[in-house]
Amino acid sequence: MTEVPHLTDLLADAPTNWGRWGTDDQVGALNFLTAPRVLEAVRAVRSGKVFTLGTPVGTGNDPVWPGRAQAQRYNTQDKSEYLVGKRTATAGGVEYADDFIAMYLQGTTHYDGLGHVWFDDTLYNSYPAETTTGGLTHNSVLPIAERGVVGRAVLLDMARHFGKDVLDKGQPFGLDDLLACAAAQQVEITKGSILLIRTGMIGSFFTRDSAEYYADYLEPGLEYSPELGRWFHEMEIASLATDTMANECTVHSSGAAFVLHAALMRNLGVAFAEILSLDELASDCAEDGQYDFLYAAAPLKVAEATGAPVNPLAIK
Amino acid sequence: MTEVPHLTDLLADAPTNWGRWGTDDQVGALNFLTAPRVLEAVRAVRSGKVFTLGTPVGTGNDPVWPGRAQAQRYNTQDKSEYLVGKRTATAGGVEYADDFIAMYLQGTTHYDGLGHVWFDDTLYNSYPAETTTGGLTHNSVLPIAERGVVGRAVLLDMARHFGKDVLDKGQPFGLDDLLACAAAQQVEITKGSILLIRTGMIGSFFTRDSAEYYADYLEPGLEYSPELGRWFHEMEIASLATDTMANECTVHSSGAAFVLHAALMRNLGVAFAEILSLDELASDCAEDGQYDFLYAAAPLKVAEATGAPVNPLAIK
Amino acid sequence: MTEVPHLTDLLADAPTNWGRWGTDDQVGALNFLTAPRVLEAVRAVRSGKVFTLGTPVGTGNDPVWPGRAQAQRYNTQDKSEYLVGKRTATAGGVEYADDFIAMYLQGTTHYDGLGHVWFDDTLYNSYPAETTTGGLTHNSVLPIAERGVVGRAVLLDMARHFGKDVLDKGQPFGLDDLLACAAAQQVEITKGSILLIRTGMIGSFFTRDSAEYYADYLEPGLEYSPELGRWFHEMEIASLATDTMANECTVHSSGAAFVLHAALMRNLGVAFAEILSLDELASDCAEDGQYDFLYAAAPLKVAEATGAPVNPLAIK
Amino acid sequence: MTEVPHLTDLLADAPTNWGRWGTDDQVGALNFLTAPRVLEAVRAVRSGKVFTLGTPVGTGNDPVWPGRAQAQRYNTQDKSEYLVGKRTATAGGVEYADDFIAMYLQGTTHYDGLGHVWFDDTLYNSYPAETTTGGLTHNSVLPIAERGVVGRAVLLDMARHFGKDVLDKGQPFGLDDLLACAAAQQVEITKGSILLIRTGMIGSFFTRDSAEYYADYLEPGLEYSPELGRWFHEMEIASLATDTMANECTVHSSGAAFVLHAALMRNLGVAFAEILSLDELASDCAEDGQYDFLYAAAPLKVAEATGAPVNPLAIK
Repeated sequence: MTEVPHLTDLLADAPTNWGRWGTDDQVGALNFLTAPRVLEAVRAVRSGKVFTLGTPVGTGNDPVWPGRAQAQRYNTQDKSEYLVGKRTATAGGVEYADDFIAMYLQGTTHYDGLGHVWFDDTLYNSYPAETTTGGLTHNSVLPIAERGVVGRAVLLDMARHFGKDVLDKGQPFGLDDLLACAAAQQVEITKGSILLIRTGMIGSFFTRDSAEYYADYLEPGLEYSPELGRWFHEMEIASLATDTMANECTVHSSGAAFVLHAALMRNLGVAFAEILSLDELASDCAEDGQYDFLYAAAPLKVAEATGAPVNPLAIK
Repeated sequence: MTEVPHLTDLLADAPTNWGRWGTDDQVGALNFLTAPRVLEAVRAVRSGKVFTLGTPVGTGNDPVWPGRAQAQRYNTQDKSEYLVGKRTATAGGVEYADDFIAMYLQGTTHYDGLGHVWFDDTLYNSYPAETTTGGLTHNSVLPIAERGVVGRAVLLDMARHFGKDVLDKGQPFGLDDLLACAAAQQVEITKGSILLIRTGMIGSFFTRDSAEYYADYLEPGLEYSPELGRWFHEMEIASLATDTMANECTVHSSGAAFVLHAALMRNLGVAFAEILSLDELASDCAEDGQYDFLYAAAPLKVAEATGAPVNPLAIK
Repeated sequence: MTEVPHLTDLLADAPTNWGRWGTDDQVGALNFLTAPRVLEAVRAVRSGKVFTLGTPVGTGNDPVWPGRAQAQRYNTQDKSEYLVGKRTATAGGVEYADDFIAMYLQGTTHYDGLGHVWFDDTLYNSYPAETTTGGLTHNSVLPIAERGVVGRAVLLDMARHFGKDVLDKGQPFGLDDLLACAAAQQVEITKGSILLIRTGMIGSFFTRDSAEYYADYLEPGLEYSPELGRWFHEMEIASLATDTMANECTVHSSGAAFVLHAALMRNLGVAFAEILSLDELASDCAEDGQYDFLYAAAPLKVAEATGAPVNPLAIK
Repeated sequence: MTEVPHLTDLLADAPTNWGRWGTDDQVGALNFLTAPRVLEAVRAVRSGKVFTLGTPVGTGNDPVWPGRAQAQRYNTQDKSEYLVGKRTATAGGVEYADDFIAMYLQGTTHYDGLGHVWFDDTLYNSYPAETTTGGLTHNSVLPIAERGVVGRAVLLDMARHFGKDVLDKGQPFGLDDLLACAAAQQVEITKGSILLIRTGMIGSFFTRDSAEYYADYLEPGLEYSPELGRWFHEMEIASLATDTMANECTVHSSGAAFVLHAALMRNLGVAFAEILSLDELASDCAEDGQYDFLYAAAPLKVAEATGAPVNPLAIK
């Protein structure tokens, strides 16, 4: 039996962006989303169609990573209390409803802060991992939320590319597959792009039996390779968003877990968004052949948070 | 002492959009944000500057409407548990942090669902108010979240217009003031615009003593008048967003409360966003003179919710 | 196929205690726990052994009724933050840890308020069911919590009586079984007793596969009969507590559900405690042959709550 | 200005119970509550009167230590949803209400786990303080909850003793005062007693202006002295409970904070209960002259918790 390699070794020669934007930088590859690139992104808008890419929250059956709890949403007041005389309308007759939620911050579509994942006791841009204690002093989702993620995005519909509704559990794909898919879709991945990758997984959550969905849980997704890491680096990919919970084929062929998180988020500062709903957008792209668009997403500005919910917009 | 008029009378001749987009409509004036208007909005982008308009969440001192509780955010895991041997890294060495939040859904920057506020037992588009019981079956924030709010927005910086850092508590302004401010700013309010109104209030929250801020709590803001209501109707204003908690001068000169909510949200279906941070954007607009821009906002898709948090984007 | 009878008919001739202790009464059969009966209960203490009957909370695998969420407990501070310099000790060197919980109030061992369950739109002692809206104005758990439940209790170990570790799913038993068990245990059920009934269910939760435990979920327990109802009434049973989640064989042979809740809690005002851990106490009783003891329980004083957690004490 | 002494020095000669009940002990002075002492406690019951000593939870105005949030309780279902047709009764006609709470575990009447407070990086019985990380592996409230706190208690009504309704903010008292009070009350503090000390503070919370109550927040209470520490040790006091939030005059005359927590909880393993409501009990004791009674309290069995809510019982 072979030993699982440590990421220190696995990524020994892999590129990083640490220090590239100064020692204080906490938004990483989002720095690639310069004003000129925002203008380039805006030029991708052709028809004025708008898509929202968040998944529903508080349904009692939200797609969450195993171990995270379902969101709990409750009314704190509504019409019923006026009906039984427990509340009275404000002067003039207005009444209102209000509500409360308890949820995991990564328990729905969300952006990770760059400090969500690490190895060798060190976060992106060399902050010590112990700074995550009790709240992320550095590399929380807040700097990402303050900046926002606005740029030209490309949807790579891997499920359609492989002729499936949904990829198999644990099905990996790599750089060649990405490029082949882009070529087949006739879309150019330009420098500073945001990548949206569709596997069909989150969409299938709502139609599959929950026990079957979570059994031997392994998501399909990108598998790390040195070429893939270098390509993300050279192409200045700013953000990676997928319709899975972890944005990658969770277990690498070497046996190491979350290698893409390590190589892209922790080393390169690529902003990860997870649990996106991409099916409707993908159908539209398949129909009109336009796989690039303006992407505008800004997670909630939750202070010191490991991540925060977001409902990204695709404007075609 | 004069009697406070009921909204039934006060708004007897006021316009509504009920039925305008069918009996099932739950997004109201967002219907004005058609694809052509999205394209028009995109053309407002000139420099590629991006601003996020949400306020921080979970700081322990978030601006919330009196009676709503502060958000509570806690780490559920972080580096500390690895340090003391309570967790072990995944195969290969990756470790991670995770967290949880309990908060009012309208306890930070948020969009209201159109059913958040009503009178005469009836929500926007004639849904019975009792459908809010336990969760908004109709007119929750979900349809707004599914559609997104993308269009051309105009910032009206009323505080600067009146030569103040922050307007006084309870200071009202009306349609004439809005138009005068737009004229002074040399920005055109086109049909189907999204209005962002700055009073300076939310920005001042972070520098003022909390007891002073909340004492005799009355926000400055727009005051309802029949002309104002007709103007919103005729101008097809899609969404109203402000840096206050309630988007209006809470108590109308007649003594009735939340009249603008009644006239605009409940009658016209105008989508309300509240508690925006507008100071940085406003400074930039004052500097470059560009007061219109692409506005892209999508609240979380919280099922049956009265409202949901959002971090709106302004792209200039 | 026969029609399921309505409780109005099923309990048409069943006794009630409505009005017995005045129109304001909200503690029902706890009124039977008079000072003389407390003194009688105290005399049941012989050896000074103490047992706590609550189940653990916040383990991630708490026994909860299907549909209720697991409790979420998180540290808000602990040593880790002092270690990394995020907190400093108070003057003199004291440091401390603190924590937070989000849970269903009936999501562990708890007392129900008498208004937790009803039929015919009417709660115990004729309060309208609509008073439960948004919070129980009457018959919440608060009056029970303010009074406390202190009296002589008798443990009826039905599992041991039937020669099983745990009763079967949906296994019913009735008054004759209770009396036969008491006789076999040589314990007298005196007037005003508190009954503790052991089925083995909650104890088995911690050793059984969760999916198996919840499959076709039906609990073993007491099944309503007119004689049983009259017996509780005549014997002035103050409180019923079991090691199940619902204190009864959920579905009655007639097809009606929660009949015991209706007959005992809603009609007679018997205070229900559920999800008790009785195994250790039962083993001790089997060993020393003493099945009666002083029972002292007081749920949390949660205002307007349907129920509240409790950790009951048995003092032998 | 004199330096504040460190607890290491202040308590250099103070007694500890570490190791006294083995290296695994996590209930400390509760070990003094042996079966014979439980029987002695039972003999203190004379009239059969019962008092519950918890404070209300979820009122929106609960007494909580500065920095802790108010409990949030919400119905998850009630009659209102049946009324509007969103729920249907179970077979036979039963309907029910249910609810949820989010709260600090020490946000109402509660027992501390012995690991709640420490100094010199070490908890009671020499567990390292770093074991509190993410949850108290040792000295959580769970062992105390599993054991329960049952014994003879003595109420010392210091407010009445000093002729006041409520003691002044920061008013200290010491061993002599305790003994004088006991003498005046003609009650004997026997070995292994549980002490309940009344200052009038929590009772006054509900009638005082909140801002005034919390201004320059300092509680009256016991002040540590070497004699006091030795007396607790020699008298084998098992538990200390008061109607304040911190059980002691928070700041010691030396300037050190929480000295009593250090000397009694961390060194001796005395179980602390805080935020008790003692006014009604105290009035009764003043009337009938009986200041000792059976005390029965068991906090919730919250796993790894720093503390847990409790509603203690006094049975006279």
